[in-house]
Amino acid sequence: LDYQQLITRATLLLDESKCRTNIAQMCAKAASLGISLRPHFKTHQSLQIGRWFKEYGVDKITVSSLQMAEYFSSEWDDICVAFPLNIREIALVEKLAKKTKLTVLLASKEAALALAEQLTVPLDVMLKIDFGYHRSGIDFRQTGLIDDVLAQFSNNSNSRFKGFLTHSGHTYQCIGNDDIANLNRDVLAKLAELKDAYAAVKPYISYGDTPSFATQTDFAGVDELRPGNAVFYDLSQWQIGSCSTGQIAVAMACPVVGVYPERNEVVVQGGAVHLSKDVFTLDEKRVYGLPVNLTTDGWSEPLENCYVKSLSQEHGILHMSKEQLESVKIGDLVGILPVHSCLTADIHSQFLTLNGEWVDKFRTY
Amino acid sequence: LDYQQLITRATLLLDESKCRTNIAQMCAKAASLGISLRPHFKTHQSLQIGRWFKEYGVDKITVSSLQMAEYFSSEWDDICVAFPLNIREIALVEKLAKKTKLTVLLASKEAALALAEQLTVPLDVMLKIDFGYHRSGIDFRQTGLIDDVLAQFSNNSNSRFKGFLTHSGHTYQCIGNDDIANLNRDVLAKLAELKDAYAAVKPYISYGDTPSFATQTDFAGVDELRPGNAVFYDLSQWQIGSCSTGQIAVAMACPVVGVYPERNEVVVQGGAVHLSKDVFTLDEKRVYGLPVNLTTDGWSEPLENCYVKSLSQEHGILHMSKEQLESVKIGDLVGILPVHSCLTADIHSQFLTLNGEWVDKFRTY
Repeated sequence: LDYQQLITRATLLLDESKCRTNIAQMCAKAASLGISLRPHFKTHQSLQIGRWFKEYGVDKITVSSLQMAEYFSSEWDDICVAFPLNIREIALVEKLAKKTKLTVLLASKEAALALAEQLTVPLDVMLKIDFGYHRSGIDFRQTGLIDDVLAQFSNNSNSRFKGFLTHSGHTYQCIGNDDIANLNRDVLAKLAELKDAYAAVKPYISYGDTPSFATQTDFAGVDELRPGNAVFYDLSQWQIGSCSTGQIAVAMACPVVGVYPERNEVVVQGGAVHLSKDVFTLDEKRVYGLPVNLTTDGWSEPLENCYVKSLSQEHGILHMSKEQLESVKIGDLVGILPVHSCLTADIHSQFLTLNGEWVDKFRTY
Repeated sequence: LDYQQLITRATLLLDESKCRTNIAQMCAKAASLGISLRPHFKTHQSLQIGRWFKEYGVDKITVSSLQMAEYFSSEWDDICVAFPLNIREIALVEKLAKKTKLTVLLASKEAALALAEQLTVPLDVMLKIDFGYHRSGIDFRQTGLIDDVLAQFSNNSNSRFKGFLTHSGHTYQCIGNDDIANLNRDVLAKLAELKDAYAAVKPYISYGDTPSFATQTDFAGVDELRPGNAVFYDLSQWQIGSCSTGQIAVAMACPVVGVYPERNEVVVQGGAVHLSKDVFTLDEKRVYGLPVNLTTDGWSEPLENCYVKSLSQEHGILHMSKEQLESVKIGDLVGILPVHSCLTADIHSQFLTLNGEWVDKFRTY
């Protein structure tokens, strides 16, 4: 049975073959670098896709919330929550730390104090360090503050300082290999400085972002890499230069509900509640996704001169070329490659594979 | 018990009192205009909030998907699905039409043909008409096409033509009362033309969008109004001029996980997966929400010189004034008024009221 016959409403498609290739490449690359891989599961959020990673030898993971850690703890026993500890959730940290080997992140002295006061079970802790992204974490130059945080560990024998973790999210502002390489070099130099300063405590170093992982080969001083988006990729990663459009492993299948040749537009069931409202700039236009033709075994490259022009809650408006418009009918399915696959996947509770199988996933709420 | 003590992670707050006032005002306004009210429930998506509407006499509703219609059909027996019929879902239309008085929208001849061929149960049908928004619907000038669609009704005695429905979504581009008034006048003049042309079939006219509903009093020729967002309002509506910030009935409560006085920023658990990625422009900045102080009985007005500067998957970065920064600590909760409450609410499966009660809602996936 063709998977398209199973689709009645807007549905998130997963190309298992592309996804497995992406996973295999992640594992092969980490192996060739001789660096441990702790993939970030916030992109796919699925136990089943997690099992594919296990087939390639992955035995530890990263997640972005304690709720996601709880979901994965049924099948994974080494989980790092790569989000600064929310001290209102320490009770849940304790509950999970009893079930699985949990690592949490500290990014402030206040959180370190709260944890030192309350922790009653063994827990691995890493310090979140900021090497220039300026989202969260302690600036690598603030060694006084790092010392203060580390000092809290001596106050509670349950907490074990494991090392430093950083996310170079500023690579998402890069375009192309050279740009990413420069940024990566800069971060690694700063990391070397920090490692020198704390050589006595032998810090384990966790590093990660998909653009640098996908394009770079120098990760000197790094013990562990945490790429996430590389499991699916998306148009943002394609624009950065991390992947080709052919590597993108998910697409929304959207039923056509309106065809408007007079304005070169097609309206689909496929809005912000299906794709997320994330957007990127392409040829000076704000673009919410790129249309593809669905085929029995997947989808085409992005259709020339076509793009998702706007999204409201349930509607997507697609600008389509004259040629494409001629072949689109009410009731057809149009595929849309997502701008940001993490946010698109987050909305959904299931993927549909090209074999017509439903793959369940976690939902935050 | 203070509701804040129940909050461990990012949580969507609902001020029941403001929400009920908004509902009461919607009902009072429709009554004073002498126009029937069919509120759009896509904003709150909650049976319990629906019961509050019933207390004010509302007996029919609008939704944006068949799945949402199915959810509400347990308590509502007159439901209009204000989204162009997706012909892949005709089987679900039939199932629902057996349970409740369902109205669906046609926006093309092809969909009308498919429905005429397949329909086996009685169903009310309206034509979606485009008076200038150019999202979906048949242009009001295309009377030939409208005639073609109407002709399909004679081919299936189960389908009953009820009238014309339109959504003036272009009011969302307006700023202020005069701007909305001009647009509303223009649409009503075109509507009068269409009604004249089809006087013989006595079309029922359904009209609706929150900006015109909230600010205008002339709806000549309109039988029914379908405001939705007015149940909660949000910063987009505030910018348009539909409401004050004090009328906004929902806010995200976000735990503080980082305080960075050196760059006037606070980091919260509250990202795109909690708020949605919708954005508006305020004082020439891209803004993803406005911070408020949470109090025991609700929240403050937006904090001066503070705004949500960026969102990643789970992190929100708040630009905060020097004064505000001094009073914010790790583990505190900061409130955030949403840019687009429909999309923020869509993400969540529950609201928390200021009385500490959880209110369940529908989830699309």
